[in-house]
Amino acid sequence: MASTRSRGGSDRVPAHPDLDSIGLQQVLEALVDPVRRHIVGELYAGDQDLACGTIDLPVSRSTATHHFHVLREAGLIRQYYVGTSRMNALRRDEMDAAFPGLLTALVGRHPRA
Amino acid sequence: MASTRSRGGSDRVPAHPDLDSIGLQQVLEALVDPVRRHIVGELYAGDQDLACGTIDLPVSRSTATHHFHVLREAGLIRQYYVGTSRMNALRRDEMDAAFPGLLTALVGRHPRA
Repeated sequence: MASTRSRGGSDRVPAHPDLDSIGLQQVLEALVDPVRRHIVGELYAGDQDLACGTIDLPVSRSTATHHFHVLREAGLIRQYYVGTSRMNALRRDEMDAAFPGLLTALVGRHPRA
Repeated sequence: MASTRSRGGSDRVPAHPDLDSIGLQQVLEALVDPVRRHIVGELYAGDQDLACGTIDLPVSRSTATHHFHVLREAGLIRQYYVGTSRMNALRRDEMDAAFPGLLTALVGRHPRA
């Protein structure tokens, strides 16, 4: 996967960290939150990019935006715009290479909450 | 593995939760702490029970005791006494059955901190 995307509105695409700069600690701090784990689980299970608004979350819109931000900063998702929709792509291949088995163990089987 | 052990001083063996009562959330909250992840990593790598005092930790003794307590409450370790030493056993088989791949992903390869 290329390190940057430029589908529609590339000037608004936020910065994404290189996974070489991300440690397990940061990934775990992102995924210990059940709302963030739910977001990643939805992306993992659906195996397709999803707009922020299409993932049902029990939090306010501004809190949801914060959670997406944390996931992006931890290298878990890549965000880009299609028109006015902010889309989210799971960085699955990169995460699997950097942290083998982590995504599968944490969100792969919809384990007990 | 039996659900209780009674090696030496069984009257002092603390209560251990049944893993059926433990959710992924509690396990992650235990393992998101780097000191606690280090303890579990040492038990995982050594594949043998260890006394509390033999695991080198960058925290005070009382803080270490707290960390072992959190790990025990999350079902990750089983504690028992041998004489005056409090021993720690990783509940590896039970964890692997309840949360497949989790221990390997989080402590199995000494990944980047």
